Amino acid sequence: MPPVPAAVDPDTLTSLLDGRWAGLRADIRAEMAAAPYRDPIDLSVEEHRSRVFDQLTALAANDRAGLGFDKAYGGGSDIGGSVVSFEMLGFGDLSLMVKAGVQWGLFGGAVQLLGTAPHHERYLRRIRDLDLLGCFAMTEHGHGSDVQHLRTTATYDPDSGEFVVHTPDRGATKEYIGNAARDGRVAVVFAQLTTQGETRGVHAFVVPIRDDAGAPAPGVTIEDCGPKAGLNGVDNGRLSFDQVRIPREALLNRFGDVAPDGTYSSPIEGDARRFFTMLGTLIRGRVSVGGSAGSATKRALALAVRYAELRRQFATPDGEEVVILDYLGHQRKLLPALATSYALHFAQEELVAALHDITDDAPEQEQRELESRAAGLKVANTWHATAAIQAAREACGGAGYLAENLLPGLKADTDVFTTFEGDNTVLLQLVAKGLLTEYKDAFQNLSPLATVRFAAERVLGAVAERTSARKVVDRLTDGDDREALFDRDWQLKLFEDREQHVLGGVADRLRKAAQDPFGVFNAAQDHVLRAGRVHVDRLVLEAFVRAIARCTDPDAKALLERVCDLYALANIEADRAWFLEHGRLSTGRSKAVIAAVNTLCGELRPHARTLVDAFAIPEQYLAAPMLS
Amino acid sequence: MPPVPAAVDPDTLTSLLDGRWAGLRADIRAEMAAAPYRDPIDLSVEEHRSRVFDQLTALAANDRAGLGFDKAYGGGSDIGGSVVSFEMLGFGDLSLMVKAGVQWGLFGGAVQLLGTAPHHERYLRRIRDLDLLGCFAMTEHGHGSDVQHLRTTATYDPDSGEFVVHTPDRGATKEYIGNAARDGRVAVVFAQLTTQGETRGVHAFVVPIRDDAGAPAPGVTIEDCGPKAGLNGVDNGRLSFDQVRIPREALLNRFGDVAPDGTYSSPIEGDARRFFTMLGTLIRGRVSVGGSAGSATKRALALAVRYAELRRQFATPDGEEVVILDYLGHQRKLLPALATSYALHFAQEELVAALHDITDDAPEQEQRELESRAAGLKVANTWHATAAIQAAREACGGAGYLAENLLPGLKADTDVFTTFEGDNTVLLQLVAKGLLTEYKDAFQNLSPLATVRFAAERVLGAVAERTSARKVVDRLTDGDDREALFDRDWQLKLFEDREQHVLGGVADRLRKAAQDPFGVFNAAQDHVLRAGRVHVDRLVLEAFVRAIARCTDPDAKALLERVCDLYALANIEADRAWFLEHGRLSTGRSKAVIAAVNTLCGELRPHARTLVDAFAIPEQYLAAPMLS
Repeated sequence: MPPVPAAVDPDTLTSLLDGRWAGLRADIRAEMAAAPYRDPIDLSVEEHRSRVFDQLTALAANDRAGLGFDKAYGGGSDIGGSVVSFEMLGFGDLSLMVKAGVQWGLFGGAVQLLGTAPHHERYLRRIRDLDLLGCFAMTEHGHGSDVQHLRTTATYDPDSGEFVVHTPDRGATKEYIGNAARDGRVAVVFAQLTTQGETRGVHAFVVPIRDDAGAPAPGVTIEDCGPKAGLNGVDNGRLSFDQVRIPREALLNRFGDVAPDGTYSSPIEGDARRFFTMLGTLIRGRVSVGGSAGSATKRALALAVRYAELRRQFATPDGEEVVILDYLGHQRKLLPALATSYALHFAQEELVAALHDITDDAPEQEQRELESRAAGLKVANTWHATAAIQAAREACGGAGYLAENLLPGLKADTDVFTTFEGDNTVLLQLVAKGLLTEYKDAFQNLSPLATVRFAAERVLGAVAERTSARKVVDRLTDGDDREALFDRDWQLKLFEDREQHVLGGVADRLRKAAQDPFGVFNAAQDHVLRAGRVHVDRLVLEAFVRAIARCTDPDAKALLERVCDLYALANIEADRAWFLEHGRLSTGRSKAVIAAVNTLCGELRPHARTLVDAFAIPEQYLAAPMLS
Repeated sequence: MPPVPAAVDPDTLTSLLDGRWAGLRADIRAEMAAAPYRDPIDLSVEEHRSRVFDQLTALAANDRAGLGFDKAYGGGSDIGGSVVSFEMLGFGDLSLMVKAGVQWGLFGGAVQLLGTAPHHERYLRRIRDLDLLGCFAMTEHGHGSDVQHLRTTATYDPDSGEFVVHTPDRGATKEYIGNAARDGRVAVVFAQLTTQGETRGVHAFVVPIRDDAGAPAPGVTIEDCGPKAGLNGVDNGRLSFDQVRIPREALLNRFGDVAPDGTYSSPIEGDARRFFTMLGTLIRGRVSVGGSAGSATKRALALAVRYAELRRQFATPDGEEVVILDYLGHQRKLLPALATSYALHFAQEELVAALHDITDDAPEQEQRELESRAAGLKVANTWHATAAIQAAREACGGAGYLAENLLPGLKADTDVFTTFEGDNTVLLQLVAKGLLTEYKDAFQNLSPLATVRFAAERVLGAVAERTSARKVVDRLTDGDDREALFDRDWQLKLFEDREQHVLGGVADRLRKAAQDPFGVFNAAQDHVLRAGRVHVDRLVLEAFVRAIARCTDPDAKALLERVCDLYALANIEADRAWFLEHGRLSTGRSKAVIAAVNTLCGELRPHARTLVDAFAIPEQYLAAPMLS
């Protein structure tokens, strides 16, 4: 173990963190620093919406608005860059990030990915330029997680060559739709397509919701969701449709089309399979949410670490008041969270690159793996945000409760991240299911219950073959050599072995599901969720290790090795009951893990400021009076 | 183990929960139900302040405003009832609870408890009637937790017979002071008293801050803290003083007085000891915060349980959509939290009774024990609120993020409870210190470092004597008899044994503190905090057991036994790493604890609605559109 260096240049770390899109990040950072934007502190809902709209307009003036669109339609054909842009916007007012995400990511992305050339030709430039503001109307009042069963209908009428979009009951009202309450002119509406008397599953349609003057279109009812816990710069609303007629061409027809006579055609067999293929193309939103949750968390930790280096409370016996970051208790609130932010950053960076590089003709398994990784990292990033921002607020005491010190806004805005763009609990089950089943069948049904339909022998077989990890773990279970805890290979094997064991246990439980599928699934649900979590933990640790390998500066590298140790050992510490129960840690080794986390907190404490400075957050978003 | 009954009348549970102040609770409930008050959903800061002020005025018209004051001055001499009133107000807009708490609890309480007859005569009726609005100005910008070292000065000038109150620097500005920004006319200001050239420690003074027209008094500067994460109906502000002269009689002189010639006198020796005696009299505020945090948590859980019984998502293989509370994962989010709310309620009820019954001439040890319990339960109640309200919000998905569904307000308002009226981390250290030290010396200094000044042999001796608990634990460590987990005696002994062992470990570590007090204390800080936590856990479980013993209805009793099992076993589950590391649980037994929590969740699921209905929360505070 190389010693932790006395000092590391934060810029060196910034370069590594910035990674493949470093140039873009630098540009956005410079632009953000130059812009007059600040956090909203005391705005009414309407003032906030209006300000965010103005900021969105300013964003539309630069080249990045269409970064994710094809060059042919004024875009940048830079999908990774587009996602990184949203991540960078996450350093600022998250309402702007979400509003931009709705317009260019969700709405524009749906047109681009579910539509075909005529839609692209007609809409993409206007979407990029904010000439056409739109919504992504998927979630309904009665069906949020279970979107396959949403109930809005779109029935084809061959006589007029139109679809009739309709909300059959209150449960089918489109709910929480961004851009709906104030600014949207059209919506991409997800509805059950019926033609020639047959229902073909969920498809997407471009439906006008307001006229040019802003009045609701005929047959469209729009309600305002009103004030929310946060993100009040985004105008969320409810949409319902009373027999609204739209032309046949309004169907975004890449994955399914209706001929003038009503004949349905699709390159993909099976309604469910088709729908989940459509959904799969839309993962950019989920990736962006994870990334921007990461940015907000970095900002909260930067605020709390800076405060903890200024604030003194209680004197030592020498009479000098102690800087609160010198207290172990305070270090434990902030430093493992900071290490986790580093780990998640590198995993996110790899995910963005994979999203960027995947091609349309990639094997389906690769596509499914990417979707699973996007789901898993969205969960990890957003739950980390919820916990770490809460800890940062508490670590700043009363000061952290004042709006002017920015933490209340971060907390309130990110709070919904764990449940939007896929509820975390549902997503974790999706991740677990992906691990349990043949990839080709895995994603045909989002229902957690669908998990139990698959025989699990294959998984069990795979576990039996992977005993090498277990051996390394065993070798190190005993003995009290503390240095061994810092053995990266041991940490990696421990994470891998845990994943395999949990997964095997889940498979074993679900094999009994034939008689009582719901009962068996439900009794195993906590194991299923755990399987998803520990899988993501393994991916994250591995990404951190690869990032360190890319670091060429020896001091920065030595520091990151310790940060990685803290991530890994704090994770093991939090889960040490499991490791003890399954004979992966002896009781002595388990206690040594706690001691190691304490030691690492002390070693990293002098570098805390460097580690948060390396995020290179535009200073105006750290301009809290408590730090002056 | 008696079987869980099919159904229990919630009113039976309500009677038990309402306890000693049942009549008062019923009166307040009826009054709240009849009042037009609702949660603020979309008010500006000023509108909210104004509404809360009007509500406060309405409250002042009833007899309960002065419930905690002496009958001689128009009060009710009912300290317990006064605290229960604040707890009940906690079911509604928490800004009103805090505003009332500032006026009658903190400000009025300081006048009553730190002042003498002339102050009572002059102020108490006016305070009760809102004829005089006041502040409790203790916290300073630079000293929040370490109030002993606050820096505002009050220097006696014998020539004029006045004190000169002064803010020497920005760090001494009074910070976050409720009632200061808008409504307060006077403040009880805590300042270092100097007379005849000698400083006598912190004392309290009644200082006018505004004239009758509301303009700042000469020499007083008032700033508005501006918007906060929540509690925006309370006008928090900053106060600073530039050589403000007040008469000698403005000193609240129960514990220390200055004669006209400047001679200082006090019934208590030692500045620190005197100050902590003063502070000790003011614990009602801390007790009230714990109680109202409990009420807010109950409301959040009631909202989430009702929603979880309505909301369906995903279908079973039979095609019927599942009520989300039927999912084990959802039960685990809400039901252990609900069990904890029951446990904390009963512990709080005992605390309130003890506060009510303690007499001025009670032995000092009894007073210290009460202070420690108040601190510990404030911590437990408020951290539980933070975690459970977060879980309730997430359990309601997007609906839980809309202000109209009330959870955002509960989350935002309670968030500061963990750090005001004593930061939880500091309070836990106080609790631990109380356990470690001779009571008579324990509370002379709030500094965590002061802990290490005490020899710990006494504690170690006490631990050695208490091996009986250990024996019971040992007897049950092995074997796989699952029923044994439900043995209440085993649970109690396990909690007790854990507390003793952790405390002994802390004592052992701190004995080495002579050479490097800060280093040794700091290295043990996580153990110190744990000692405080597990002590409170033990108190809470014991209170729950005593409450069940008071229950005369066999069905209600059987249900509560299971709720108590869930509280105890979920607590053990969360801490099972420790039990494993210390040989208190075998690995098999540890896994059985997890299984038992799952089983209990399933058994209690049909009673979830009964358990939240039993809180008898006024219906208008549960009127969320998501439930209609």
